[in-house]
Amino acid sequence: MKTVDTLILGGTILCLDESMTLIEDGALAIKGDTIAALGRANEFRQKFTSQNILDGTNSLIMPGLINSHTHAAMTCFRGIADDMHLMEWLTKYIFPAEARNVDPELAYWGSLLACAEMIRSGTTMFCNMYIFEAETAQAARKAGMRCLLGEVLFDFPSPNVKTPKEGLAYTRKLLDTWSGDPLIRIAVEPHSLYTCSRPLLVEAGKLAEEYQVPLALHLLETRSEKEQLREKLGQEAVPYLDELGLLNERLIAFHCVCLDDEEIRLFSEKGCKVVYNPESNMKLASGFAPVSRMIREGVCVGLGTDGCASNNSLDMFQEMDTAAKLEKVRHLDPTLMPAETVVAMATRQGARVLGMEEITGVLKEGKKADLILIDLNRPHLTPMYNPYSHLVYAVNGSDVKTVFISGKMVMKDRNLLTLDEEEIMQRVCRIAERIRDSLKEPS
Amino acid sequence: MKTVDTLILGGTILCLDESMTLIEDGALAIKGDTIAALGRANEFRQKFTSQNILDGTNSLIMPGLINSHTHAAMTCFRGIADDMHLMEWLTKYIFPAEARNVDPELAYWGSLLACAEMIRSGTTMFCNMYIFEAETAQAARKAGMRCLLGEVLFDFPSPNVKTPKEGLAYTRKLLDTWSGDPLIRIAVEPHSLYTCSRPLLVEAGKLAEEYQVPLALHLLETRSEKEQLREKLGQEAVPYLDELGLLNERLIAFHCVCLDDEEIRLFSEKGCKVVYNPESNMKLASGFAPVSRMIREGVCVGLGTDGCASNNSLDMFQEMDTAAKLEKVRHLDPTLMPAETVVAMATRQGARVLGMEEITGVLKEGKKADLILIDLNRPHLTPMYNPYSHLVYAVNGSDVKTVFISGKMVMKDRNLLTLDEEEIMQRVCRIAERIRDSLKEPS
Repeated sequence: MKTVDTLILGGTILCLDESMTLIEDGALAIKGDTIAALGRANEFRQKFTSQNILDGTNSLIMPGLINSHTHAAMTCFRGIADDMHLMEWLTKYIFPAEARNVDPELAYWGSLLACAEMIRSGTTMFCNMYIFEAETAQAARKAGMRCLLGEVLFDFPSPNVKTPKEGLAYTRKLLDTWSGDPLIRIAVEPHSLYTCSRPLLVEAGKLAEEYQVPLALHLLETRSEKEQLREKLGQEAVPYLDELGLLNERLIAFHCVCLDDEEIRLFSEKGCKVVYNPESNMKLASGFAPVSRMIREGVCVGLGTDGCASNNSLDMFQEMDTAAKLEKVRHLDPTLMPAETVVAMATRQGARVLGMEEITGVLKEGKKADLILIDLNRPHLTPMYNPYSHLVYAVNGSDVKTVFISGKMVMKDRNLLTLDEEEIMQRVCRIAERIRDSLKEPS
Repeated sequence: MKTVDTLILGGTILCLDESMTLIEDGALAIKGDTIAALGRANEFRQKFTSQNILDGTNSLIMPGLINSHTHAAMTCFRGIADDMHLMEWLTKYIFPAEARNVDPELAYWGSLLACAEMIRSGTTMFCNMYIFEAETAQAARKAGMRCLLGEVLFDFPSPNVKTPKEGLAYTRKLLDTWSGDPLIRIAVEPHSLYTCSRPLLVEAGKLAEEYQVPLALHLLETRSEKEQLREKLGQEAVPYLDELGLLNERLIAFHCVCLDDEEIRLFSEKGCKVVYNPESNMKLASGFAPVSRMIREGVCVGLGTDGCASNNSLDMFQEMDTAAKLEKVRHLDPTLMPAETVVAMATRQGARVLGMEEITGVLKEGKKADLILIDLNRPHLTPMYNPYSHLVYAVNGSDVKTVFISGKMVMKDRNLLTLDEEEIMQRVCRIAERIRDSLKEPS
């Protein structure tokens, strides 16, 4: 009998590896931060022992979900303004609210709230872009969440940095501070092509190259952005990125609603990554990303919720449901984006997008133990014919029972173990009071 | 001090009346099955007393949601087949599974499961079409749910009735049996124009006229249905309904994806009702219903989930989220389907669609006490700037804490009070075993 730190016995295990291995009456052993073994419950009962045995019966056990694009601290702005045109939304609400309110306190508590919401809905890793990212890194560490994050860079001042140079220096400091951290990784994150000059993009590219980390940015989120860029750059956006030397396997492009066929081909050829955000693209009326075409052309596509001002939820199960359904109705073809493809986007493919495929995204011996248990004993999950269909079309975030990240249990039976959610909600409610008042001031 | 049966003190009350009355620190008194009074908590503490006082603090209190189109017993087929073309889905899975398995037992237990799921996600009334509807009526009565239901009628035999005549007789019996029931109402429900001959539709219309009840049917769900009908009828579908004398205020048409401008005008003129089912229309790739156009033209539109084989959930909060977002992206206009409009579709407008506006759909003195409490003390609902935005874009069904239908508490703090959900889930799992086996038999 081998002793392990945690032993899960029973339940249906979905490995989400390339061959979509499914183990009925499964078992999973965790040692330290790692998946030590996967197999059948009746065998593991003879082979392993543990102080911490969990009953997985009537559960789905799967890799934790990966939210590949969000702005965590924007939980503080959840629902501050909806149902209006992008420019009105940005200039009347989001920009003034951010300029007047975003500070380290908001970044920290807003990020903690996002972590609470994400863990509760089965997300174990997220990719973040915002302001004061040192605070988000501290929040993720406190929550015990895995993340890839970077300070947003643009030509104009942010509440955190006055110049692009300061932004790059702040990013370099993050890279040095968090080097080798077991949970937190840093990316270089210029906001977009319409907010970053060529010199800033080039410097950002050099920094990402020097540290061999991802470079992440918003790209072609709307048709008007595409037209604006064409005018500004005198060429299409992706060829411009190519000219700057940024088209490589470490490029992560958020949204890509208006990627044309040639740009998709270039992304595929160069191994660039894309994050699909259907709920945000719907709510802001940005458009339909060519997601099934990108996948068909060999582009690696992950899934993200975007921030809480434009969704307004971080529930990846709801995002999966929408990802599966939107493409079907757009092309009047119900065979597009089948459930298995969508679940893979939110797990294995997400890990590839973020350069973490060696670490997470599938259940396999030797990978980090980032995994969730979903309680099937619920009216809305009864009966179950196909677990992938259930995950996409029936499960929601509140069905997640227990969550492990890097071998550590961070939620057990719906109780968060790393965070004091009452305190976090109180702090964010106070910050929201301040935000509400700030919008009454004349601009 | 007046004594009432139930007194809710505290919380934000959303009345969902035409003027969208909102009461902060509200209070609501229930006497028998009726809302006796609405007001402010500090006043009601002096005016009313009750054996049953509920704390509404940190809750939203609103009318129960109205699911205006579903097939309740199809919970038994949840996820049986997905991501395939409609005809393959119907002929290989749904039709054989139904033909071999639908019986009173399935209709009863499947409907009970649907009731459990609906109450848990804040739905207090549903409109149903399926087979063996006497069983669904019994299930709704057992659950304490309000509903409008009718036996599906078509030209060919169903597992329940051999001929259209038998179907009409079964419907008449339902009408007589349930006449005057406080919760259950009966409609006449021919399946659609492509499955019902002219004589059947005419007889159905006469029966609905005789009893002055709604006539409900599927209409123009897909483009191919529209083309098929044009060929079969030699005219468009809605003018044909007009010719049969069926275009009146009691007509309820499900889906209406392919209603053209003239048909919308006719619907508006005649006061016909429509039910919008965006999640099902997306999943089956049926198309985009012209929902904001219908509303603009004065058609009364409710919201429904459709059955569990084509959604695969009965959560009206998720349906609201999708209803708000889909139209925005389709027309690239984020101002379409604002949150308030969508919440009204799922409450006040739903009641109008089902001919129940005197009874339910808004919180007002004298209406039946059909209402829900939503727990706001959750990370994903923090902070709150706008309650309507929250209901549509952030709340999900599992945030519903307590549910009243016709003055009776049917769920308290997430515990169902009228149903034994463990027994229901076990029964449906056994039925699902039988369904699974039946699909292995050669057809």
